[in-house]
Amino acid sequence: MTRTPANALLPNGLQDVLPPDADHEAAAVERLMSCFAGHGYERVKPPMLEFEDALLAGAGAALGAQTFRLMDPVSQKMLGLRADVTPQVARVAASRLGHAPRPLRLCYAGQVLRTAGSQLRPERQFAQVGAELIGTDAEAADAEAVTMAVEALQEVGVPRLSVDLNLPPLVGALAAHLGVDADTTDRLRQALDRKDAASVDTLAGEHAELFRGLLRAVGPAETALPRLQALDLPDAIRPEAERLARVVERVRAALPELTLTVDPVEHRGFEYQTGVSFTLYARGVRAEVGRGGRYTADANVGATEAATGFTVFMDTVMRALPAAPRAERLYVPAGTDPSIARGLRADGWVTVAGLEPEPDAEAEAARLGCGHIYRDGRVAAVRTGSGSG
Amino acid sequence: MTRTPANALLPNGLQDVLPPDADHEAAAVERLMSCFAGHGYERVKPPMLEFEDALLAGAGAALGAQTFRLMDPVSQKMLGLRADVTPQVARVAASRLGHAPRPLRLCYAGQVLRTAGSQLRPERQFAQVGAELIGTDAEAADAEAVTMAVEALQEVGVPRLSVDLNLPPLVGALAAHLGVDADTTDRLRQALDRKDAASVDTLAGEHAELFRGLLRAVGPAETALPRLQALDLPDAIRPEAERLARVVERVRAALPELTLTVDPVEHRGFEYQTGVSFTLYARGVRAEVGRGGRYTADANVGATEAATGFTVFMDTVMRALPAAPRAERLYVPAGTDPSIARGLRADGWVTVAGLEPEPDAEAEAARLGCGHIYRDGRVAAVRTGSGSG
Repeated sequence: MTRTPANALLPNGLQDVLPPDADHEAAAVERLMSCFAGHGYERVKPPMLEFEDALLAGAGAALGAQTFRLMDPVSQKMLGLRADVTPQVARVAASRLGHAPRPLRLCYAGQVLRTAGSQLRPERQFAQVGAELIGTDAEAADAEAVTMAVEALQEVGVPRLSVDLNLPPLVGALAAHLGVDADTTDRLRQALDRKDAASVDTLAGEHAELFRGLLRAVGPAETALPRLQALDLPDAIRPEAERLARVVERVRAALPELTLTVDPVEHRGFEYQTGVSFTLYARGVRAEVGRGGRYTADANVGATEAATGFTVFMDTVMRALPAAPRAERLYVPAGTDPSIARGLRADGWVTVAGLEPEPDAEAEAARLGCGHIYRDGRVAAVRTGSGSG
Repeated sequence: MTRTPANALLPNGLQDVLPPDADHEAAAVERLMSCFAGHGYERVKPPMLEFEDALLAGAGAALGAQTFRLMDPVSQKMLGLRADVTPQVARVAASRLGHAPRPLRLCYAGQVLRTAGSQLRPERQFAQVGAELIGTDAEAADAEAVTMAVEALQEVGVPRLSVDLNLPPLVGALAAHLGVDADTTDRLRQALDRKDAASVDTLAGEHAELFRGLLRAVGPAETALPRLQALDLPDAIRPEAERLARVVERVRAALPELTLTVDPVEHRGFEYQTGVSFTLYARGVRAEVGRGGRYTADANVGATEAATGFTVFMDTVMRALPAAPRAERLYVPAGTDPSIARGLRADGWVTVAGLEPEPDAEAEAARLGCGHIYRDGRVAAVRTGSGSG
């Protein structure tokens, strides 16, 4: 092995995707997008860079620390390199598509960059593919987001999918209702995220039974939901738990075979969700395949509108898929009429043109990774190991 | 019209691509990539960010002034946001694919960003799609780059394509050979780019006849090439002109209908080309559709290898294409069995689900831009203007 030139080293968390993986990923992205298009979601493509204050407004605020900044020599203002596409889509929906009929269904696919990787996702650049359903508070919208995400990922071939339904604002809302102070609420939220029952007991004090009850309402939807509904939740909180149950029912009706779990106390990774949310997993793969849920989108000046949606993380999707098959290649020796090669491609062959006459065309075909060769007016298999054509 | 929120303003040269254009562009990108794949080009995906010194090494040096820089908090080094993908592909070929058999055929599609737009191309972000053929000096490689670019663009539907064949290093090499000083060479190059015969005469002095001859060798390939070959070019220069003629012959053989022009003195826009090059135009569209040619790729430490390739600029491609047709949408009222909607999508329909029961489903379908509605167990056309379903 020759040494790799020093300038070929890339910054941590940034990588070259090589053949055949890059093509495999691009095909998976387009297949997901095509599923979303089939459900009436229309594609938008916001730019990679925006004014920092616009990019980090509203739902984007949570990603401030993760966002690369740079100076724009034209405007002399700071720009942010996007760390998430969802807030951009919300901005497009509120501004240029502010007058499009609601509910508005939009989808997107694009690269995002983050200043730091996480333990589960060391990549600092990855492709995000997602869909947003904006301007509706309907339960059917929550269910559509979950079922469409699952159907699209299944269509792409992600095996052993499961969905965890979550209520990220629940713990905070409950703690506020019960008068728990902010610091204790934070620690309680972390203890619940860790499923650390002992700490929950200590932190929750007189409300220990209620919070322990929430912890017991984690697990397969069939057992967890009745436990959640049996809890003595305050009237201000109960409707969200009931809504979660009804959304699960709708998803169950559309996808009876799907593995559905519920975790009403999970909060990690939900940066701006305000209601029923969900996390998509592929069994055996580290990190989630995708994530989504309700949020509040900025509408026109000062107003907001209800929205839901989800994002699929292509790095994790690719880890979940079986390895890409390599295309079968056909060597077409130099001097072959261009219209013949064109006809072979039209028949579905990947043609690899010889650029100079080769004394041993078959060996050259093998050297270039071609399993077939065009010879004597027809396609023949390359006899590997043979010394001559 | 409600006012667009102020934070929806984007920096100059950056824009949101909306429906149906974003989908149209993505489909064109994948169709181009699929054509390249048919010729044995394998996709690579380098990252958006790299260490500044690696990104601007070799062929990338010409883009230094166009490249956004930012600080990496992890490595504490400066990173560059790519302004061109070709130098990255050359880096990948030299490093991680240094041991793959040559010629190496690679392709890519991705966003690039530039600190400033140009007069012809005000966009500061656009999609680049391209192919590189690395590790071969063969004339057949030059011809393959041109013909594949044309075939792919025709396949995507770009009308009235033409190709201008160029020799960007010619003027410089000739001037150096004749002992013309560097400053005069620069001015001569600019005068030739402008086709300013009077200035060429003045600047070229005793060599005026030769340089005027080059200027006359601009035009349709059939008339321009014989004029180029008839010039009294020095022996050190003549082989490149002869090569250009042979490449034109090969392209002509593969694509007899193509409009081919020759401009051996054109230099604008060629940042690192070292030999036979070309520019792709669509008649009636400002700015070139693509550009390519020979360059020298860095190989392993200290070594180089011959390469050619091209880049297609999607902003121009999209300006050349007819407007995208909008997909036909089918409204599926709330409560319809999910498996029915699934079947309709499998039949090719774009389904738009009603999320709540609507008293006038037909009006709702029309409001959401659906030309059809699923009603009484079948698909029916929406009677626009009718008040009830």
